[in-house]
Amino acid sequence: MPELRYDPLQDRWVIISTERAARPSDLRDTTKYNHIKLCPFCGGNESQTPPEIWSVRDPHTQPNTPGWKVRVVSNKFPALNIGPQGKRIGVGYYDMIEGVGAHEVIIETPQHDVTLADLPPEQFKWVLQAYRERLRDLYKDTRLKYVLIFKNHGQRAGASLAHSHSQLIATPIVPLNVTIKLEAAKKHYDNKERCLICDLIQQDIFDKKRVIAEEKGFIAVAPYASRFPFEVFIAPIQHNHSFAEASDEDLEKLSSFFKDILVRLKKVLLDPPHNYVLNTAPNTEAKPKFAGKWETLKYDYHWHIEIIPRLTRIAGFEWGSGFYINPSIPEEAAQFLREEKEEQALP
Amino acid sequence: MPELRYDPLQDRWVIISTERAARPSDLRDTTKYNHIKLCPFCGGNESQTPPEIWSVRDPHTQPNTPGWKVRVVSNKFPALNIGPQGKRIGVGYYDMIEGVGAHEVIIETPQHDVTLADLPPEQFKWVLQAYRERLRDLYKDTRLKYVLIFKNHGQRAGASLAHSHSQLIATPIVPLNVTIKLEAAKKHYDNKERCLICDLIQQDIFDKKRVIAEEKGFIAVAPYASRFPFEVFIAPIQHNHSFAEASDEDLEKLSSFFKDILVRLKKVLLDPPHNYVLNTAPNTEAKPKFAGKWETLKYDYHWHIEIIPRLTRIAGFEWGSGFYINPSIPEEAAQFLREEKEEQALP
Repeated sequence: MPELRYDPLQDRWVIISTERAARPSDLRDTTKYNHIKLCPFCGGNESQTPPEIWSVRDPHTQPNTPGWKVRVVSNKFPALNIGPQGKRIGVGYYDMIEGVGAHEVIIETPQHDVTLADLPPEQFKWVLQAYRERLRDLYKDTRLKYVLIFKNHGQRAGASLAHSHSQLIATPIVPLNVTIKLEAAKKHYDNKERCLICDLIQQDIFDKKRVIAEEKGFIAVAPYASRFPFEVFIAPIQHNHSFAEASDEDLEKLSSFFKDILVRLKKVLLDPPHNYVLNTAPNTEAKPKFAGKWETLKYDYHWHIEIIPRLTRIAGFEWGSGFYINPSIPEEAAQFLREEKEEQALP
Repeated sequence: MPELRYDPLQDRWVIISTERAARPSDLRDTTKYNHIKLCPFCGGNESQTPPEIWSVRDPHTQPNTPGWKVRVVSNKFPALNIGPQGKRIGVGYYDMIEGVGAHEVIIETPQHDVTLADLPPEQFKWVLQAYRERLRDLYKDTRLKYVLIFKNHGQRAGASLAHSHSQLIATPIVPLNVTIKLEAAKKHYDNKERCLICDLIQQDIFDKKRVIAEEKGFIAVAPYASRFPFEVFIAPIQHNHSFAEASDEDLEKLSSFFKDILVRLKKVLLDPPHNYVLNTAPNTEAKPKFAGKWETLKYDYHWHIEIIPRLTRIAGFEWGSGFYINPSIPEEAAQFLREEKEEQALP
């Protein structure tokens, strides 16, 4: 069973995957895609994956057979799984949690050689629906405090299979980066009775120069203190604390907006390796309820998507400090991405 | 001038290098060593670097000429430099600091084709002396709150030149990861009047199974909640808050201990790309004095070195969550590294 271990010095939890423990020889080269003869994510190869959890399919087709548009399955090598009780155990001075959680794969298309940016908006919408439905379902399990939805595109961004897919990991703790954001948002709300992210969006709209696009109720900006070149932050302009509450109409608008941003990145940076993560509110039903810490959650968090092109290398300074050096000016990155659209629009 | 920009949502500062601003085309491939005809770090090529700041040299040789053993120079493309005043400026809702600081390179040997692990212990000691002397000197500038010393070994770890070198960056803020550790240590000290790191070392000595080596007053362990496979934590066993206070004798002992650990990693993982960082106390003379936060600093921090082999890829999950999945069990990693020595010792 995987273990969650607490690092008292860095105030963070780590998943130790005891089941797929690596010997030194396993670790000596991990830079390539897995070499496989048969892609388990292609239409027709459904038997190569764990059973289907959720899908959008043609009428009258059966689970685990062709006819699907978007398909969610468990990760074949899950970092966490739903079985254990999630007991908390003291180990001498240290702390451990039995590795309860979930690790799922969202297969975005049955076709092998397309990227998410290439998908028609309707197909893109089904991917976003998969995110929302899995979030709603997993948050019914009150042992799970958070669900992180993310995508790795390209080998340098950590993708091990070329077929377009995203993933989610549900965890029995709220991860460190999310906690930091929640605490910043809570502090701001306590001071001002306003949402921090709403305020940042208003500042960016006022300043104009970091805005990449603003349309259909969504905004995309190059954050003022971007850690990485061409980092993009996407959020609904109106306050909305949880992606699980997005309506079908919201998802339809987001799908064309989000796709447009991915297309711009693909054109300006020539299909860059990238990650994106969906940051939404923690599971407000989870127990214990964060010791009452997040009571005002509805008002002090605001879901958003971070896109991180993987263009620069992370070296010792960043690992040691948590402090990033960005060789690119966010206002200039925003301009390149903003103008890409304008160029497209020329007659 | 570089800017330090504050991210109010992630509660962290970022360095925006406005001078070497990157266009999209500059960012499209950064995976290779810089191709240069003449290595600026080799003995004889002293004119290819900025002027020497510190060195160990043969008697009667002049700065910026051959005859040196270890040489410290400014980085040719510094992320921060010592010129600006370090003023703090409000930018609408956002915060900025003029990018004051220092960015230096410690050239560990005049020879091109050796790694740090290959250096004789005496040469290794001079490298450690360079760290200590630069730390002492830079901490005289009370605008600088922290000096992070680090090394990138191998392209995958972010090294852009093959010649063996380390770097330091001095910053007008205490970086996030260091702040997190200081706060954890301070909380522990406030509760127990004991150093957190001393306590963790004692737990590891008691448990035995994570200890890689314990000799000459130093210990190397695989941390209980290691984020990465074969991560190593090195510290003096006796409490010592600042590396700047290490004696020549301490450095002599550390040089052979640290070299031994690097040799083990090189053998077990076949010269893995890796980073290491030296984590020491912030500049206690810096103003303002952390609003009195670190008054008991001498007693609540403990310098240490973290070595991070770069064997796994960091993907969207880690970026989005600050939560790491380690496919290797720390106790097993410790055993591989411990036994490497024992094998060597066989007749």
